Amino acid sequence: MTQAGCPFTVIAVARTDRRDRESTPVQSALNPDERGTLEFRAPYEEGLAGLAEFDHAWLLSWLGGAETSEPTPLTPPTPPLRQVPFLLRPGGREMGVFATRGPRRVNPIGLSLVRILEIAGRQVRFAGVDLVDGTPIIDVKPYVTRFDRPPGEPRCGWFDSVPMPARVTPAELTDGSPPPRS
Amino acid sequence: MTQAGCPFTVIAVARTDRRDRESTPVQSALNPDERGTLEFRAPYEEGLAGLAEFDHAWLLSWLGGAETSEPTPLTPPTPPLRQVPFLLRPGGREMGVFATRGPRRVNPIGLSLVRILEIAGRQVRFAGVDLVDGTPIIDVKPYVTRFDRPPGEPRCGWFDSVPMPARVTPAELTDGSPPPRS
Repeated sequence: MTQAGCPFTVIAVARTDRRDRESTPVQSALNPDERGTLEFRAPYEEGLAGLAEFDHAWLLSWLGGAETSEPTPLTPPTPPLRQVPFLLRPGGREMGVFATRGPRRVNPIGLSLVRILEIAGRQVRFAGVDLVDGTPIIDVKPYVTRFDRPPGEPRCGWFDSVPMPARVTPAELTDGSPPPRS
Repeated sequence: MTQAGCPFTVIAVARTDRRDRESTPVQSALNPDERGTLEFRAPYEEGLAGLAEFDHAWLLSWLGGAETSEPTPLTPPTPPLRQVPFLLRPGGREMGVFATRGPRRVNPIGLSLVRILEIAGRQVRFAGVDLVDGTPIIDVKPYVTRFDRPPGEPRCGWFDSVPMPARVTPAELTDGSPPPRS
């Protein structure tokens, strides 16, 4: 089962209260309490067996469509390879796209870490919303501390020196003004 | 630029000393010292600006092709939704695919956490190898502790109760015998 513009099999759809990218928090970890639901498509429900025993999961999402209100071209145009990330909008500093977590990527695949609340049939209730309602989900992987947590306190580039207020949205991050503090 | 069987733009290719899936460690975190290189394709080099300031990065890879020696069909067949993960081969227990980290997925996208050693032009040297040589890379994202590390010690399902020896490969995990201890 595919969705126009998404070159993958869509296994589920994210249901959230967010309607557009600009007013959606930029990262699930910055918005950990807001709840959403993954509605799995019937053929894939069986693949959820065992997932309820994990506290967290990675959602891989397709950001080529639901992130904008425009029709999705079958081959999305390549975004600029240097961009101003949402969190750097106040200063206008550019970064290479592979040093950002933003949605305008060569392959617009999102990676969201969410907390699993409950799995009931084909519905996965989660906390940690950074996805617009209707975003196609193309993979879910369990969070495994042994695999996913590097030792110590790694350097995190430009993220180490910018404010990251709770629930901040792109719309709140505008050129020239500092982002609001949480 | 695309590659037969991969529905994305391939931004880079992983160069490692591993030639097939069965003899490649199952996770980069279990093989943190082995080194590899990402060879970025020329049009995407600019997207690396800023990445050297991060200690770790996520590699999103396309596992539909290089993981097997067989020709890749344009539409890979859907894998079983319940599978025996590599690490559960000794006991033969099945899990839903979305509760595993294995490569046979509905959309065969791999997620590897690697340590960045050096970036020189289009070459990204890294440590932490779980990819077969030639695996197409479809995205690179910086590891950001604030986004990617859940608080506390989360439950990690069946991974919490299986041995995960250093550098273990699928070939070492066979039905009926316990995996080797590191």
